[in-house]
Amino acid sequence: MKQREARAIYLDHAATTPMAEPVLEAMLPFLTEEFGNPSSIHSYGARAAKAVAAAREQVAALLRADPSEIVFTSGGTEGDNWALTAGMWVGREAQPPRTRLVVSAVEHHAVLNTARFLEERFGVEAAILPVDERGVLRLDSAQEAIDDAAAAVSVMLAGNETGSLQPVARVSAWAREAGALMHTDAVQAVGKIPVDVKQLGVDLLSLSAHKFYGPKGVGALYVRRGLRVPSFVQGGSQGSGRRAGTLNVAAIVGMGAACGLAEQEMEQASLREKELVERLWTQLVGGIRGIVRNGHPVVRMPGILSVCIPGVEGESCVLRLDRLGIACSSGSACAAGSTEESHVLRAMGVPAELARGALRMSLGRSTRAEEVDRVAESLIRVVAELRSLNPAWRSS
Amino acid sequence: MKQREARAIYLDHAATTPMAEPVLEAMLPFLTEEFGNPSSIHSYGARAAKAVAAAREQVAALLRADPSEIVFTSGGTEGDNWALTAGMWVGREAQPPRTRLVVSAVEHHAVLNTARFLEERFGVEAAILPVDERGVLRLDSAQEAIDDAAAAVSVMLAGNETGSLQPVARVSAWAREAGALMHTDAVQAVGKIPVDVKQLGVDLLSLSAHKFYGPKGVGALYVRRGLRVPSFVQGGSQGSGRRAGTLNVAAIVGMGAACGLAEQEMEQASLREKELVERLWTQLVGGIRGIVRNGHPVVRMPGILSVCIPGVEGESCVLRLDRLGIACSSGSACAAGSTEESHVLRAMGVPAELARGALRMSLGRSTRAEEVDRVAESLIRVVAELRSLNPAWRSS
Repeated sequence: MKQREARAIYLDHAATTPMAEPVLEAMLPFLTEEFGNPSSIHSYGARAAKAVAAAREQVAALLRADPSEIVFTSGGTEGDNWALTAGMWVGREAQPPRTRLVVSAVEHHAVLNTARFLEERFGVEAAILPVDERGVLRLDSAQEAIDDAAAAVSVMLAGNETGSLQPVARVSAWAREAGALMHTDAVQAVGKIPVDVKQLGVDLLSLSAHKFYGPKGVGALYVRRGLRVPSFVQGGSQGSGRRAGTLNVAAIVGMGAACGLAEQEMEQASLREKELVERLWTQLVGGIRGIVRNGHPVVRMPGILSVCIPGVEGESCVLRLDRLGIACSSGSACAAGSTEESHVLRAMGVPAELARGALRMSLGRSTRAEEVDRVAESLIRVVAELRSLNPAWRSS
Repeated sequence: MKQREARAIYLDHAATTPMAEPVLEAMLPFLTEEFGNPSSIHSYGARAAKAVAAAREQVAALLRADPSEIVFTSGGTEGDNWALTAGMWVGREAQPPRTRLVVSAVEHHAVLNTARFLEERFGVEAAILPVDERGVLRLDSAQEAIDDAAAAVSVMLAGNETGSLQPVARVSAWAREAGALMHTDAVQAVGKIPVDVKQLGVDLLSLSAHKFYGPKGVGALYVRRGLRVPSFVQGGSQGSGRRAGTLNVAAIVGMGAACGLAEQEMEQASLREKELVERLWTQLVGGIRGIVRNGHPVVRMPGILSVCIPGVEGESCVLRLDRLGIACSSGSACAAGSTEESHVLRAMGVPAELARGALRMSLGRSTRAEEVDRVAESLIRVVAELRSLNPAWRSS
């Protein structure tokens, strides 16, 4: 093993994952000789279209959906934008019109900012549902907001910052009863825990391939059979007229392969990640005074450990760990660089000062016990150093 | 050389192109070990962000733009949707509001269907400008439609079906004078002919990498410096807050490499393609009675030959040529499979019966003279066969 491989430890799988080797292998022919446009009627096109159809079946199988219910997108963010925008249009056409979009306070920005955009530009009302101190939706508020004025409801399956799972199936039942569209952002969940669209009872579900060892730049929106929603991207007749634009064949094939792999590896990987997360937490809680674990302790993604460490800045920890060859995150990658504290931790009632010490370590299929041990040891040392430089902490 | 390579001839470069080898080489590190999310602040993220920045410079250089003016998209269709939608929003906010979207009748469906969508859903007026018999915008109608009620104007740089170039710079001047946003769909032009955003005088320009030997699933929108347009895809703070969603690093790097290659190869390739197109046309016009060439004879893309052949169906020609190992198209790939005749040929006043015999042969950098000769010979034979089966033709 090379020195570099032995040293670098990647614990930021919730931000993005490395592509699995079989995924790249599946893609390569479509990045080279099989370059046809699947919309073309000649053999180049036909071979590309056949590969896309096979990938569609793999994606559908993972979600326990029908292939006709899968529409390819450019990623999770597009899927979320599409779902909420579609909900808004469907609500407008209802008799009487429905003008409320119901989302949780801990949604990804792709959902929250879309809801805000639609509120500003289209006059819908964005109802932001509170969560409890573990980041889990408060069911009483949800039930109250989902009435016959609700056009659509969007509640994520798994939190990207804390890993907490949301009671999507229960919310779906209320949405169905109220006649509102139900969407879930399942970007963090798909490929890592079992996701069954029928059991969830959702109308729309978005996913992104790069979160589960597939390529970046591709995702899918599950659209329940029989449901007609306006396209988000207009144009040619690709995607059965539901999503225009030349199909990203290689990436779609890669996503299909990633779905196939997930079926095989998910169960064992999640057991291992869960164990390693506990191993990591046990060491951290033993070595860092005052460290707090965020999110639900049990109903959660197996591979995410989110903590708050009093007396340090999360970003400083990330940068120092990086110098030691360890990659992790202080929050979601999509909000990195912003000085704002996490909206998720704020919604959970974490005090601002504590929230500044947030750190997310997200494990993956290749994470090993020795790596976790080295991370624990390094973080304990880094925190001690940072605290020694913080007069407010020293005097506390 | 292998038998298969010697036989297959690809003349559908306007639908999509094979990736150039240096493009794939540039991408491979980012499909393997350099998998970081450029929004992450650790080293994996920083290296990815650096690669994205370099690609942004390559794209900007090709367009003679500033890197800050380049926003990455999922492709040409998204860019077109974004530009028109942005035009609509900007028009709404003008005092007094501007409610007209001016587009040409020969635009790609990504523009035309977006204009129609915005007309249906937002009550804007889509003014569809006529073209002459060569597919070129009628300047008098354009000038008339571009007044202080125009929110945005969208005229493509090069036609995807005929290859005719449009007088974008002239239209831009009128748009600027009238205070309307000017967009051009340059998807067919970028990487094949020189494109200079300043000379064109446009505010917005969309491009797609897979049309010039880059990867599918990625493109860019040029947004003139100083112009603020609402995002089309809401979410995280990627793309300087202009386009949310995890950046498709490998594809962006590939697009950058394709832009760099285009700078080197464009001039020679276009001269060669132009010569070969004339060589092909000379043989076809000598061997197929009544064949008509579509589009402008001179002000055109070098590599596209669009013809109409009376007495045959274009699709039948495509399928028969395909059996002979030749890939070409009966129209645009994005509308393939639809039974509708080409909206472009209709707008040019081509009679419906003749338009059914449309065939597009689009050459590329690797096209050789022997290939062109074999296509001519094959097509002449195919047309003779098809005509012999067509009683209407035999009796004419």
